[in-house]
Amino acid sequence: MNSRLEKYAQLVISTGANVQPGQTLLVEADVEHTALVRAISDEAYRVGAGYVDVLYRDPFLRRSLIERGPHDALEFSPAWMTDRVARAAADGAALIGISSGSNQEVYAGLDLGRVGRARHAAVEREWLKAVTNREISWALIACPTERWAQEVFGEPDVDRLWEAVAHALRLDEDDPSAAWEQRLNELDQRTKILDDRAFTGLRYRGPGTDFSVALIPQARWMAGRDRTRHGQAHVANLPTEEVFTSPHKDSAEGTIRSSLPLSLRGGVVEGLELTFAGGVCTDIRADKGADLVRADMDIDEGGRRLGEVALVDRSSRIGETGVVFKNTLFDENAAAHIAWGDGISWTLDDLSVEDAHAAGMNESDTHTDFMVGSPELEVDGVGADGTAVPILREGRWVLETL
Amino acid sequence: MNSRLEKYAQLVISTGANVQPGQTLLVEADVEHTALVRAISDEAYRVGAGYVDVLYRDPFLRRSLIERGPHDALEFSPAWMTDRVARAAADGAALIGISSGSNQEVYAGLDLGRVGRARHAAVEREWLKAVTNREISWALIACPTERWAQEVFGEPDVDRLWEAVAHALRLDEDDPSAAWEQRLNELDQRTKILDDRAFTGLRYRGPGTDFSVALIPQARWMAGRDRTRHGQAHVANLPTEEVFTSPHKDSAEGTIRSSLPLSLRGGVVEGLELTFAGGVCTDIRADKGADLVRADMDIDEGGRRLGEVALVDRSSRIGETGVVFKNTLFDENAAAHIAWGDGISWTLDDLSVEDAHAAGMNESDTHTDFMVGSPELEVDGVGADGTAVPILREGRWVLETL
Repeated sequence: MNSRLEKYAQLVISTGANVQPGQTLLVEADVEHTALVRAISDEAYRVGAGYVDVLYRDPFLRRSLIERGPHDALEFSPAWMTDRVARAAADGAALIGISSGSNQEVYAGLDLGRVGRARHAAVEREWLKAVTNREISWALIACPTERWAQEVFGEPDVDRLWEAVAHALRLDEDDPSAAWEQRLNELDQRTKILDDRAFTGLRYRGPGTDFSVALIPQARWMAGRDRTRHGQAHVANLPTEEVFTSPHKDSAEGTIRSSLPLSLRGGVVEGLELTFAGGVCTDIRADKGADLVRADMDIDEGGRRLGEVALVDRSSRIGETGVVFKNTLFDENAAAHIAWGDGISWTLDDLSVEDAHAAGMNESDTHTDFMVGSPELEVDGVGADGTAVPILREGRWVLETL
Repeated sequence: MNSRLEKYAQLVISTGANVQPGQTLLVEADVEHTALVRAISDEAYRVGAGYVDVLYRDPFLRRSLIERGPHDALEFSPAWMTDRVARAAADGAALIGISSGSNQEVYAGLDLGRVGRARHAAVEREWLKAVTNREISWALIACPTERWAQEVFGEPDVDRLWEAVAHALRLDEDDPSAAWEQRLNELDQRTKILDDRAFTGLRYRGPGTDFSVALIPQARWMAGRDRTRHGQAHVANLPTEEVFTSPHKDSAEGTIRSSLPLSLRGGVVEGLELTFAGGVCTDIRADKGADLVRADMDIDEGGRRLGEVALVDRSSRIGETGVVFKNTLFDENAAAHIAWGDGISWTLDDLSVEDAHAAGMNESDTHTDFMVGSPELEVDGVGADGTAVPILREGRWVLETL
C-alpha cells in the first residue's frame, strides 16, 4: 500500500503538477485523504518544492453549514481563502486537487436548493480565473476512501476501489510516468488528426440523442498535456483519456441524453436529458437531480450554453475497469462528454480572451461535464461541405489520418 | 458518546468562546478532531454564529516539512494564514483552539533544532497580538485521540482518556455550564483574597526549588473568566483551575524545578530546572529537551524572563484524575505553574501597554507555561513588611481572607 501511495505521489508531482524546485504547491483535499496528502508532501519536498500549503476540506462541516447556517453564509467565501488562490496565481504556484465520491450520502435529507447553493462562490471564481489564464500548474486526482467505495460498490471495499483507481492511473505499470507519456502521445496524435480534418461541427446520434454542435474554426483540439502561460508543462487531469475543444456557444441544437450519473454539488444527477436551441439549453429533464442542474446552469447567462466537447473511446482504462466511479474525473474519461458553462480558453490561445469570446467561446462562472458516450452513441465529424465522417462507432475510435 | 460530544460542544460554545449571534467562529483543530469539530460547528450555528471557519492541522505534514522541506520554509507563514487571524481580530471573532498530546512520536528521529524552529512564526505573533489586545473571545480545549491516549497510557485507550477529560471538563455533571459557573466563582474568590492581601512577592520552597519573585503592585490576580475589550465574556482555557498574575520581569531569583513533563514544539521536556538572577534565566538544565527550552527562550530578549505566576491546588479536577496528560492545558491546571515570556496584559488593564511594561510586565513573542506544583511545594505570599503567609501547603490552598 505504501508503495502504491508513493507511486501515486510521484506520478502526480512529476507528470501531473510537474512541481519545480522552489515552487509553492497548494493541495486541496478532504480530511479522509491524509495518507495520500502526506505522501504528496514528502514527494514535493523531495523534488525541491519551496512550501507545501495544504487545505483540508470536511464535507460534514459543509453539511453543518447547509443544515444550520444562516442563508448568507451558504455562498460566503472567507477573504483569506480567495486571497490564497489569488496569490497562488500571481506566484505561478502548482496545485493538486483531490476528490472522492459525490458525498451525496453526507447531504442526504437536506434541502436540495441549499445543497446546490452552498459553495465558496468567490473562491471558485478565483480558481476559474487562475485556470483560464493558465497561471498555475494544476493536476486533479482522486483518492479512494471508505465512503467513496461504499457509494461505488455498495460496501466500503476500499481495496477493490484502489485496484480500479490504480489501474486507471497506470500505477500497476512498472513506470507509471513512462506509461502516461506513451498514452499522452497517442492522445496528441488524435488531436492532430482532428485538427487536420478541420471539421466545422459534430453530430451525435444514439438512444435519446439527436444532437449537433458547431466548432470554432480557430479552436484547436487538445488532449491531456497542458502548459501554463509561463511555459510550465503539466497534466491537469489524471487520469485523462479525452481529446477536447471549445464548441461555438450559439450552435447547439437538439436533444442529448446523459449516459452515466453525474455528481454535482453534493448530489447525483441521473437520467439527464438536455434540449438545446440556438446554443441555449431550453429544457432540462432528469430522473433525479434536475434542480441541481438548473441551479448550476442558472448561475449566469453562459451557464445554459456549452463550453466543451470531448471524445473518449473504450480503449480508455477507465472504461476497461467497468466501474461507474460516480466521480466526474473518472467517469468523463470512460465516455465521450460535453460541458455546459465556461469555454476552454487554451484551445483558442492564439487569440486574446476577448477575441476568443467574439469567435464563439462561451463565458460562465461554471463549467460542468456530463457523460454522453456509450457503445450505442455514434459521433461524426461534419466537414465544411456537409459530409459526415465517423469518429466514434460502437465506442471505438474509427477516425484515421487523412 | 454523541451525547458527550454534544455536551462538550455546548460547554465550549457557551461558557468557553461564548459565541454570539452573527459572530464568526474560527476553529483550529487537528485532522483527528473531526467528530468534535463537527459537533462544535453544529452547536455554533444553533446559537446563531455567522460563519464557522475551520482550519485543520496535520502534524504529519509538519513532520514532512521538518524532515524534507527547505530551511527557509521552517518558520514560514503563508500570507493568507496571517491575514485570516488579523481579520478575525479586526472583526472581533470567536476562536476555539483544539489540541491533543505532544505529538513527540510524530517527530521522533528528526533533528531537534529543526523541530524546535518549525512554526508559523508570523501567525503566532498575530495570534499573540489578538490575544494581548483582547480582540477575540477565545477558548482552548483538548480532544482525546488514539495517539494522545497512547502517549498518556502507553496504549491507545481513547475511552479511558475520554473519561479523564470528561471529568476534568465537568462533562460528567448534569449541567456542565452550571458546574463551571460555580467553580469560576470559587476561583474569583481566591483572586479577591490575594488582591486584598497585596503581597509584594511570592516565595517557593521544595525539592530542588528555592525561588522568589516580586509582584507588580498594579497587577491584579485573575482567574478563568476573561472579557474582550468589546466587553464579551469568555473563558479562555477549559479546563481552568488556576489563579494567576504577571510578576515583575526583573525580580526572579533562585532555582525552580519543574514537577511535570512539558510538551513544547513537538517535543517533551523532562526534569527541567531553571536558575534565575535579576529576573533573567541564567541556567537551563533538563533530563530531556533542554534544547527545546533554549530555542523557545532565545526567541527574543524577553524570552528568558517571567511573564506569569499561577497557583493551583489539589482540589483541581485535573489533579483528582491522577493522570499526567502531557498537554499543558491540563497539566498546568493540575499544579502551580510559571511561564517564561510575555506578561499577561489584562492583569494590568488599567494601564496602557507602555505603562504596563514600564511597571515591570515582561514583553516577548513567546509565552510558555511549566508546572512546578506538587504536594512537596510550599508557596508563601510575602507582605510589604517581609512577613511570609502560607498560600499552598501539601498541595492545598490554605490562604484565608484577611
